[in-house]
Amino acid sequence: MTPAAPGLAIAIALALPAAAQDDPLPSWNDGESKRAIIAFVQDVTDENGDAHVDEDDRIATFDNDGTLWVEQPIYTQLAFALDRVRDIAADHPDWKTTQPFQAVLEDDMDALAATGDKGLLEIVAATHAGMSTEQFAQIALDWLTEAKHPRFDKPYTKLVYQPMLELIDYLQDNDFETYIVSGGGIEFMRPWTQEVYNIPPQQVVGSSTVTEYEIVDGKPTLMRTGEIAFVDDKAGKPVGINSHIGRRPIIAFGNSDGDFQMLEYTTVGVEGPSLGAIVHHTDADREYAYDRASPVGKLDKALDAANDNGWLVIDMKTDWKTIFPE
Amino acid sequence: MTPAAPGLAIAIALALPAAAQDDPLPSWNDGESKRAIIAFVQDVTDENGDAHVDEDDRIATFDNDGTLWVEQPIYTQLAFALDRVRDIAADHPDWKTTQPFQAVLEDDMDALAATGDKGLLEIVAATHAGMSTEQFAQIALDWLTEAKHPRFDKPYTKLVYQPMLELIDYLQDNDFETYIVSGGGIEFMRPWTQEVYNIPPQQVVGSSTVTEYEIVDGKPTLMRTGEIAFVDDKAGKPVGINSHIGRRPIIAFGNSDGDFQMLEYTTVGVEGPSLGAIVHHTDADREYAYDRASPVGKLDKALDAANDNGWLVIDMKTDWKTIFPE
Repeated sequence: MTPAAPGLAIAIALALPAAAQDDPLPSWNDGESKRAIIAFVQDVTDENGDAHVDEDDRIATFDNDGTLWVEQPIYTQLAFALDRVRDIAADHPDWKTTQPFQAVLEDDMDALAATGDKGLLEIVAATHAGMSTEQFAQIALDWLTEAKHPRFDKPYTKLVYQPMLELIDYLQDNDFETYIVSGGGIEFMRPWTQEVYNIPPQQVVGSSTVTEYEIVDGKPTLMRTGEIAFVDDKAGKPVGINSHIGRRPIIAFGNSDGDFQMLEYTTVGVEGPSLGAIVHHTDADREYAYDRASPVGKLDKALDAANDNGWLVIDMKTDWKTIFPE
Repeated sequence: MTPAAPGLAIAIALALPAAAQDDPLPSWNDGESKRAIIAFVQDVTDENGDAHVDEDDRIATFDNDGTLWVEQPIYTQLAFALDRVRDIAADHPDWKTTQPFQAVLEDDMDALAATGDKGLLEIVAATHAGMSTEQFAQIALDWLTEAKHPRFDKPYTKLVYQPMLELIDYLQDNDFETYIVSGGGIEFMRPWTQEVYNIPPQQVVGSSTVTEYEIVDGKPTLMRTGEIAFVDDKAGKPVGINSHIGRRPIIAFGNSDGDFQMLEYTTVGVEGPSLGAIVHHTDADREYAYDRASPVGKLDKALDAANDNGWLVIDMKTDWKTIFPE
């Protein structure tokens, strides 16, 4: 940087209209979605307005997969689980001839799909259990440091949506508590959500396995079992919200039918102001385009309900100036 | 108040030694417990000290029954459940001849005790289920407004410990997040913990029943079933802490063997500074005196372990200047 640069930067900044300088959502194109979000936040934070909401009740919930980060071509946590099957296969010679593991080791996705939910649960139990919560957090972090997305060739934690990062920041600046409410594993997300989203572990709600308290090498430890404790998806999302937060959100963002009940719980039949929104993946060039027919992140029932319930449908292609952080 | 009073108050304040004016724990007598608590907080908040702990990791957990409020002669939530059996008995004529309800209606505590855990679960299912979470919160609040403690003749929410209110306040002033981690029902506590303890619903961890998402009269609602979802007691406390907070606390306060594992998880084998403490009920005159032989709040194993693990044992009689708020 030359000595002249700071002065130049100030000159450029002064030449911009005030509105552009103060824009809390610079990666959003001017349009209905952006305007509706900003109007909602201004309304609920206006102390003299009819729609004012106390800070304690400013709860915003966000789905993760497909709402805050990429979920195609397969959920990131599934990519993690499949890689982990490969990583530890040497310790399990029987996997070469046992489904669903054989399918993973032979990259036979049709055979894997044929094992259905039962196969998936076996993979979760084999890859997500048998270690302490702290060991699992480190395994997840190590994988996220190494693994790259097959299309974008970047770490998954770089494939988060810049417009949503700005939105989280904007809501936090306006005294919202921002929560992740995801079908993904709570302990797969917590190790990195603070750094990536500025959302601390206690504001992450997700699916979980049963943990058991044990003393291991003199240290009190929670060991992960393969048993599913809670599935934070569909009707599970309001249940998870109530369990962890104990308050009904006033903002919910999702992108698939798995978020339908969370959006409904937040916006339908409630007395005060509320905002529900769906991120609609419409941009095959810069990200992906999918909705009703997609096996991952299927958006069908919630898209039909958006109009009736006044949910914003965010068109990724036209509403978002940029997709990923630079 | 006379016009002269404010000047007088200032004159009195100026005459006090600085330490007394700044005392964060005025209801604690000067002694080992008070000094140890203050020294710990000063150490972990000293930015230049070896024991400094980042604000994000300043997590303090408190048991509720017997640690923050009175638990004798029976747990407050049990008093609530028994009153509720009486309140709704007219709708259940069979209860007159069916245990455990008959025992409650006849005030026969021996017969009730004889029904054991099975009887207690039936009472919970009959009194805590079949309504929405919002209806249950109102039922709990209504009862707490009306009900009075049999010995002190005051509402239960007035029978909280003033020294512990000051401690929570002191920790919050020092950027701790303060959590309740109780064997009691999470939804029995949340409606009033903000007002009474300045602890919001999302910082309350407790036992829970399964809830089911339904649309009731057009409004998305969580209905309470009688099925137990989670028991936040003993080894369940570290599990509940991990599920809700996702971080290991550095301070834990309890008063019974039900808190043993929470204290152990917080203090044993950990690398950084930690503080475990037990409120020992030693004051039969002002409150109650009980420990190893008490059916409610039994303190035996945890009292034996306190010395080995360096847990503070707070002697209610000598450490606390006052017990309840004036």
